[in-house]
Amino acid sequence: MAVDIAQGNARGIASIYNSAVAAYAIAAAWEIGALDELHRARTLDTADFARRAGLDPQSTTGLFRAMAAVGLVRRDDAVVHTLDAFDEMYRNKSFFHWLSRGSAELFQQIPAVLRTENRTGDYYRRDPAAIAYACREIDQVTYAPTFWAAMGRVDFPFTRVADLGCGSGARLMQVLDRYPGTTGVGVDIAQPSIEVARKEAHEAGFAGRAEFVQGDVLRLEPRPEYADVELLTCFMMGHDFWPRENCVATLRRLREVFPAARRLLIGDATRTALPDTELPVFTLGFELGHDLMGTFLPTVEDWEPVFAEGGWELVRTNRIALTVGEVIFELA
Amino acid sequence: MAVDIAQGNARGIASIYNSAVAAYAIAAAWEIGALDELHRARTLDTADFARRAGLDPQSTTGLFRAMAAVGLVRRDDAVVHTLDAFDEMYRNKSFFHWLSRGSAELFQQIPAVLRTENRTGDYYRRDPAAIAYACREIDQVTYAPTFWAAMGRVDFPFTRVADLGCGSGARLMQVLDRYPGTTGVGVDIAQPSIEVARKEAHEAGFAGRAEFVQGDVLRLEPRPEYADVELLTCFMMGHDFWPRENCVATLRRLREVFPAARRLLIGDATRTALPDTELPVFTLGFELGHDLMGTFLPTVEDWEPVFAEGGWELVRTNRIALTVGEVIFELA
Repeated sequence: MAVDIAQGNARGIASIYNSAVAAYAIAAAWEIGALDELHRARTLDTADFARRAGLDPQSTTGLFRAMAAVGLVRRDDAVVHTLDAFDEMYRNKSFFHWLSRGSAELFQQIPAVLRTENRTGDYYRRDPAAIAYACREIDQVTYAPTFWAAMGRVDFPFTRVADLGCGSGARLMQVLDRYPGTTGVGVDIAQPSIEVARKEAHEAGFAGRAEFVQGDVLRLEPRPEYADVELLTCFMMGHDFWPRENCVATLRRLREVFPAARRLLIGDATRTALPDTELPVFTLGFELGHDLMGTFLPTVEDWEPVFAEGGWELVRTNRIALTVGEVIFELA
Repeated sequence: MAVDIAQGNARGIASIYNSAVAAYAIAAAWEIGALDELHRARTLDTADFARRAGLDPQSTTGLFRAMAAVGLVRRDDAVVHTLDAFDEMYRNKSFFHWLSRGSAELFQQIPAVLRTENRTGDYYRRDPAAIAYACREIDQVTYAPTFWAAMGRVDFPFTRVADLGCGSGARLMQVLDRYPGTTGVGVDIAQPSIEVARKEAHEAGFAGRAEFVQGDVLRLEPRPEYADVELLTCFMMGHDFWPRENCVATLRRLREVFPAARRLLIGDATRTALPDTELPVFTLGFELGHDLMGTFLPTVEDWEPVFAEGGWELVRTNRIALTVGEVIFELA
């Protein structure tokens, strides 16, 4: 099923419109579990699914009508079947969720958000819980293989790690799980995330090995928990270090606050420079979203000269560049 | 520029994703006036536009990057040029606005809205001001030519009209403008709309001819203002008459409350039955949206037998069927 878009005809514009509805449908269908079930079984009775899950059947089937409109599934009344395009969409579902669940309020409010006079203080809203939901999978899809390869290149024994901007603690627990005998501390500015992290660490049996402290990574003060940390990780928040002079200051501060650190892994998105018609999934939403929020996104070329000035040696740059110029810097 | 979607490859899924971002961009670019300027001049310096309008230049250009990603415009830095597809999108801009500005909160909240246990009371939110903004143009794009043709078939002289569900009064004022010597009354459940209508009628010089009263069209009581009304119009709310027994009762009530009425024009969307892959702009969003809101949408076949039972003779059915099965019934 191929549908041409942007042909200057009614079907092309309808494809753009129907894709916008489908993006909402993909995000929601993932969150309610229907997308996973369809992915496994290749077919799903959506009305039956709705009844099992306590959902409105007509609306639930409607989500899959939206996916059928853009060629992801085929539908016979309430029963849907995957088409070839389904699996590529499924691999990218977390990016749709970021846009349509996590960031919809930001994009809905564009006319107000654009006004220069409005762009101070808390001038936009997103759904933090939905963003966190999407980012757990975005992390796995984009960074995980390269992250573990970078961990494998750590050429010294370590017993204590810290994750900066730890969210609900998933990365820290993954590291503790893979490296028996280590302990760790997670730092995040959001107290609710810290509480979720403590709870999940307890449930996963890491209570004795993982600590979580509330703190602003951009303004850390020395703490006993930080003194012996040899390995630092910091994912999906490096752009918050910027602009440049703040970034240099933050990198230097990390040296002071973590005096025993011998490796810092920074993984983040960077600004890309692709032609408008070759943008992959996520880039367009991510970059427009950060422009709307007034957040500077450095390029890899912006980053690289900053490390030496900030007191770190750049050992290796891993360009992942799957969607939004993802990169992992290995610093020593 | 043709981009295949739903080919099972990364570009196809990226087209769906980028279309979702473009839908937000179209809605916002219309509302800030940039789309109209580009439509007239065929080219626009978006950074210059942003500065003139007091908007953030990088974000404003970003809106057009999104449109460039789906083949609607071509972009050289901040300067954009229309492509062939632009005009068809421009004709449909109000439908994008309905989805991405007016209804975004409803679609963002799908996982919660689907839950049967949540579907009572005010269980969803939309942006009423944004919906009204879009619907003024949707009315012009879809109903206007057929409406005026139906008005031309009114085969008796009339001096007093009523518009049911009048919103901010645009239709009533258009009728008064076209038929000198007439007076009219608009009825709407929303007091803010009534106040806007009164203000706009005053400014447009209709203060002496147009009255506006707050009232629930589904539960009207006789009023002196209604006694002499010969012509009734009711647009984009007929589906609220349903389910069937309520619809019959409301139609009968209109006979009682407007004893002098000789013509009733009901214009509304109706449920369609197109194949999933042939859905035009608007249908998918409109029908899924109403399923989510739990609103019954009758088909034309549901409607037609109801009129006689409700005390009205169906003189003519005008099927417009531009997007969402629009129809205008002429009743006597």
